[in-house]
Amino acid sequence: MSYKIVLLPGDGIGAEVIYAAKDVLEAISKKFNKPFEFSSFDIGGIAIDNHGTPLPNETVEACKNADAVLLGAVGGPKWDNNPSDLRPERGLLGIRKALDLYANLRPVKGFEKLLHASPLRQDIIQGSDLLIVRELTGGLYFGEPSERRENGNAVVDTLLYTRKEIERIIDKAFQSAELRNKHLTSVDKANVLESSKLWREIVEEKKAQYPDVAVDHVLVDAAAMKLITNPTDFDVIVTENMFGDILSDEASVLTGSLGMLPSASLAEDGVGLYEPAHGSAPDIAGKGIANPIAMILSAAMMLRYSFNMNDEAQTIEDAVEAVLNQGYHTADLKSDDGKLVKTKEMTELVVKAI
Amino acid sequence: MSYKIVLLPGDGIGAEVIYAAKDVLEAISKKFNKPFEFSSFDIGGIAIDNHGTPLPNETVEACKNADAVLLGAVGGPKWDNNPSDLRPERGLLGIRKALDLYANLRPVKGFEKLLHASPLRQDIIQGSDLLIVRELTGGLYFGEPSERRENGNAVVDTLLYTRKEIERIIDKAFQSAELRNKHLTSVDKANVLESSKLWREIVEEKKAQYPDVAVDHVLVDAAAMKLITNPTDFDVIVTENMFGDILSDEASVLTGSLGMLPSASLAEDGVGLYEPAHGSAPDIAGKGIANPIAMILSAAMMLRYSFNMNDEAQTIEDAVEAVLNQGYHTADLKSDDGKLVKTKEMTELVVKAI
Ligand SMILES: CC(C)[C@H](C(=O)O)[C@@H](O)C(=O)O
Ligand SMILES: CC(C)[C@H](C(=O)O)[C@@H](O)C(=O)O
Repeated sequence: MSYKIVLLPGDGIGAEVIYAAKDVLEAISKKFNKPFEFSSFDIGGIAIDNHGTPLPNETVEACKNADAVLLGAVGGPKWDNNPSDLRPERGLLGIRKALDLYANLRPVKGFEKLLHASPLRQDIIQGSDLLIVRELTGGLYFGEPSERRENGNAVVDTLLYTRKEIERIIDKAFQSAELRNKHLTSVDKANVLESSKLWREIVEEKKAQYPDVAVDHVLVDAAAMKLITNPTDFDVIVTENMFGDILSDEASVLTGSLGMLPSASLAEDGVGLYEPAHGSAPDIAGKGIANPIAMILSAAMMLRYSFNMNDEAQTIEDAVEAVLNQGYHTADLKSDDGKLVKTKEMTELVVKAI
Repeated sequence: MSYKIVLLPGDGIGAEVIYAAKDVLEAISKKFNKPFEFSSFDIGGIAIDNHGTPLPNETVEACKNADAVLLGAVGGPKWDNNPSDLRPERGLLGIRKALDLYANLRPVKGFEKLLHASPLRQDIIQGSDLLIVRELTGGLYFGEPSERRENGNAVVDTLLYTRKEIERIIDKAFQSAELRNKHLTSVDKANVLESSKLWREIVEEKKAQYPDVAVDHVLVDAAAMKLITNPTDFDVIVTENMFGDILSDEASVLTGSLGMLPSASLAEDGVGLYEPAHGSAPDIAGKGIANPIAMILSAAMMLRYSFNMNDEAQTIEDAVEAVLNQGYHTADLKSDDGKLVKTKEMTELVVKAI
């Protein structure tokens, strides 16, 4: 029996960095004698070009039958003026929904060696290490109605949650906090939104089940401030889909290591999808200079969350850290005394370190 | 004939700083021979205590009959566990709606003298000077339905906009950009929300009417990143209510001068409401140490926007800058070589400088 991994390269640098992850996984396979089986399918812009849809059925089927999915990135200027249902990001939203990937986990941690690249003052960013748990299949993203009204003179979107949807993401966040520093910050807008009030009630109900975890509630506007002024105050942040979209992107630039940040999107008992926090970066696509580390660390997350291979995951993470500590970096990170390398060399360095 | 100004002190430090603004306006009145007439009404927590509602009718009536309104801040722990309709912020939301204050203008500009207090690296924050134009009476804040469903097992909020509501805020933003650096960034989530698609269409339609203004569209998640990594790229940002809530608070901490930031909330042809960007700060309330400058600069905005008194407004702004340049600061701003003063002294210094 082998672990079936579906690769969804997607567009732009997505298609470049995904093979970095594959190389690294093959090195892990050899070292730990684990059988991985890879197959590739189209999603996003390339799928529109090849199949006339951003999410072909065969891609969905393959993902459903896989043990885990690695995604590069989707999108690019070529498809920017397409009608809604022929846009690359529809593929991403579609696969999230099709696989019921309700929990998006985005760790944000600075690498000591790279903190100089942070836009924040050193004394503020130093020591920050947080995890954003974002609800990924509900809220404004999928609520109906979402439509024009009154002959196009009005428009509506719907922020809809069921109690079940909120409960499962809150549980996931508490469980994540138990494995980390046992501090959960729930972010909502309970002074305005009915959905946030229910969200807050459910957090309060669940507290008793996780007595080790300290809980606080922060309003989304205050959270957006605090991420910048006091990032070290956070451990695990849990929030609904749209707030999570904004806050996780905000958080992703704090450490100066956007090209290093992985993410995991998990289903209740099924497959997980792993992708870098960065996008398809059309401006540098095709040059072979993209930073593959976010993708490589996403593969490490896959090993840990989907395959329960903690040592293997740790081996990748240690290898990455070792290579960075030797001063190697890709072009996204400016450095005076570092050694500038391209995607392929960076990947080889990590493979060697494994 | 005199200018009728309604003061809504509200709660916490709101009730302390509002009298600072009044003192400053009285100094302006003397210097420029302008007759101001003040009256005070309750809003927020104090109104709940005194009248059993966060927004008494007489407060609404007084504001409707005023030439302009100055608001301190609302809220405090005393009322935090009240039912929704007896919470201080209902007063704020209610007055916005009652006066149709659709346009919230939040300038964010660092004072040279205070940039060391910024959480950002000096080279990143230096030179930033932006204005957030937030739609304030539509979207998720007021859309119906906003309710529990299925016996409390589901919940819904509604993001609703009419074309008219979007048009007037976009016009206001273009006009604001024409008076500044002629660069408008419209922030939306057009890759997901139908309301954002209409928003983007309307910006595109309006462009022709403002040929001097350069326009770009940025997705809200990208905007949350860019505010931190490239704050100087922005001039005027326009966005819908909830995105504006998050982004304007995020932006407010960038320069390290939250206690200095004013805001204006404007109706189409009516009264304007002016308030500091900061809240009621219950932790320091009653100590007489609050920074009155955001409130004082809000009064300056009132002179400029509601009374068309540009010289008078400029006189206040110059006085504030002069006092800061002499090294005076309140306790919210740490400084090694500065002169620490309390609310009252700071106000007197500004009055003297006028
Ligand atoms: C591409 C877009 C639809 C997507 C989202 O908003 O969820 C992206 O921003 C993300 O965060 O993965
Ligand atoms: C108090 C709250 C309802 C309000 C809002 O969300 O609009 C506040 O955060 C603001 O920005 O003025």
